Amino acid sequence: MDRVNLKKLAEELNLSVSTVSRALSDSYEIGSETKEKVLALAKKLNYQPNPFASSLRKQKSKTIAVVIPEIANNFFTLAINGIEKVAQEKGYHVLIYLTHEDHLKEVSIAQYLINGRVDGVLMSVSGETNDISHIENLTKKNIPTVFFDRVCEKINAPKITTDDYESGYKAAGHLIERKCKRIAYLSASKSWSINKKRLQGYLDALKVNSIQEDSSLITDCSNNDADNYKIITELLSLPNRPDGIFASIERLAITSYEVCRQLHLAIPQDVKIVSFSNLQTASLLNPSLTTITQPAFEMGEEAARALFSILAKKALQEDENIIIPSTLMERDSTAPKLSS
Amino acid sequence: MDRVNLKKLAEELNLSVSTVSRALSDSYEIGSETKEKVLALAKKLNYQPNPFASSLRKQKSKTIAVVIPEIANNFFTLAINGIEKVAQEKGYHVLIYLTHEDHLKEVSIAQYLINGRVDGVLMSVSGETNDISHIENLTKKNIPTVFFDRVCEKINAPKITTDDYESGYKAAGHLIERKCKRIAYLSASKSWSINKKRLQGYLDALKVNSIQEDSSLITDCSNNDADNYKIITELLSLPNRPDGIFASIERLAITSYEVCRQLHLAIPQDVKIVSFSNLQTASLLNPSLTTITQPAFEMGEEAARALFSILAKKALQEDENIIIPSTLMERDSTAPKLSS
Repeated sequence: MDRVNLKKLAEELNLSVSTVSRALSDSYEIGSETKEKVLALAKKLNYQPNPFASSLRKQKSKTIAVVIPEIANNFFTLAINGIEKVAQEKGYHVLIYLTHEDHLKEVSIAQYLINGRVDGVLMSVSGETNDISHIENLTKKNIPTVFFDRVCEKINAPKITTDDYESGYKAAGHLIERKCKRIAYLSASKSWSINKKRLQGYLDALKVNSIQEDSSLITDCSNNDADNYKIITELLSLPNRPDGIFASIERLAITSYEVCRQLHLAIPQDVKIVSFSNLQTASLLNPSLTTITQPAFEMGEEAARALFSILAKKALQEDENIIIPSTLMERDSTAPKLSS
Repeated sequence: MDRVNLKKLAEELNLSVSTVSRALSDSYEIGSETKEKVLALAKKLNYQPNPFASSLRKQKSKTIAVVIPEIANNFFTLAINGIEKVAQEKGYHVLIYLTHEDHLKEVSIAQYLINGRVDGVLMSVSGETNDISHIENLTKKNIPTVFFDRVCEKINAPKITTDDYESGYKAAGHLIERKCKRIAYLSASKSWSINKKRLQGYLDALKVNSIQEDSSLITDCSNNDADNYKIITELLSLPNRPDGIFASIERLAITSYEVCRQLHLAIPQDVKIVSFSNLQTASLLNPSLTTITQPAFEMGEEAARALFSILAKKALQEDENIIIPSTLMERDSTAPKLSS
């Protein structure tokens, strides 16, 4: 079988090669009707773009970089799958770089990317990013950057997030509704944009429900599981220990389960737990975990789409904010007490 | 504070800059005593290599690529952490490429890497790799390649694996010891090197224990969770259904749990389950999951070390095989029946 290339598609549709090419790259110069015709035929004939040929032609790397803090986290693995799906459709390679929450590493990666190694960057910033000159340098060098999840508010660029404030409010409100009186907030790094919003949602939910804020229950955790184990053990060993835990990130919920088991605290009877989480096994845990489930795959897709829109020089508001809501999934870790 | 650079280290130690540089890159030309002195001072002064300066000097990319099938899999996330740890020590960037088990994508990535974009490649091959010319091309172009976990037997290169055959034997033997009579093997892609070995271990354990092999219990699964859900539902709905399941990869164990819940089959009373898995929540599942736990982090470290040895032109047997054993972690999913 002949390889299906742009020329073949163009012949079949009686269009020019350049029109087909621009239709496939979703250019604003091509009408939607033509785009649909081209895409339909490309799909039918199983057209596979040749990234090397087109890269040579356009002097582009046909590559985008995804810079994220970690991958041992279901949110990011799902987001990457969303990004890769869109990149694949566009015939782009995806490079993944991990910062391990290390600002210096993030700086070093950004410098590396500035040398034209990629056409664009998708980024979820590390926890310690106060100095943002490395990110500004990317945009100065005309390397389009799109943020997702953990965004850099100060930079004019599209930002794809979930409704962190509303979800924080919802999670705390859910524990209050389930009769929790002393609700701990397990905090990820304070410098993260998402943590600030989730915490504010928690604080406002307490306020609206006339529960006094207790700073001893707002617990700073780290990126290290062993440290967090100690911190949460201390919290749950307080004479007046919390009866509800709101874990702002997944790893803190897992460690909370481990600590409860060690301290012989029953979930949900002694402590109720809700967590931001995309844990695949949430429903299989003992007990199943109530989660704020983020639209991770969709956020990855949207971030990639925003980047490809910029690359295709399509009209796009530079500081576009796309917010995709999360969902509260009630499970047994917050089940109500049986009325006696 | 002055930036600590190679010159500063050299001055303090009264060594030449090139000696310090070679000591830090673990060159065979430098004695172990000198290396230790240099490393100790570098650590004390928090020396951070400048990857750009050294890259320019050596005309190297100071980058290695990791090509893996997927990341929604705790084995690979842990292995990447092991790789990054070693790469960080050497001042290298790590690029991660995902094949999504797609041979064509793997070929395309390999072609992309051939253009000198990286100094070396760490690879766990995709499920469908029969045509290996794309990997041969890498080695022809003098881009050193090291395999880990899912290896390409036909290529002369270091291979880092776990004891898949012995672990398969151990997992099946454990179910037999727990009185299972009809043990299903949930098979990942038949073309994977690791699957062949795990299956052979299972078959030999049956044989040694005089259990007749039953081909209806060797169940081919796919890379798609929804398909696997149907396949495992069918298996567990057989009139003469299995009383033990050996899941050759993690995702098949998770789906088995979901199917058992749906069919109201109790684990371990009705069905016992053991799985190859690095699931972080294995001990928190309901019931906790008995696993063959792979040394994922260590395998990543070893693979990276093997690659850096080649890059440092140190003596290394080209087809070195390093096998790091896995561990059977007994948990409640294979708990014995209480004697009545």
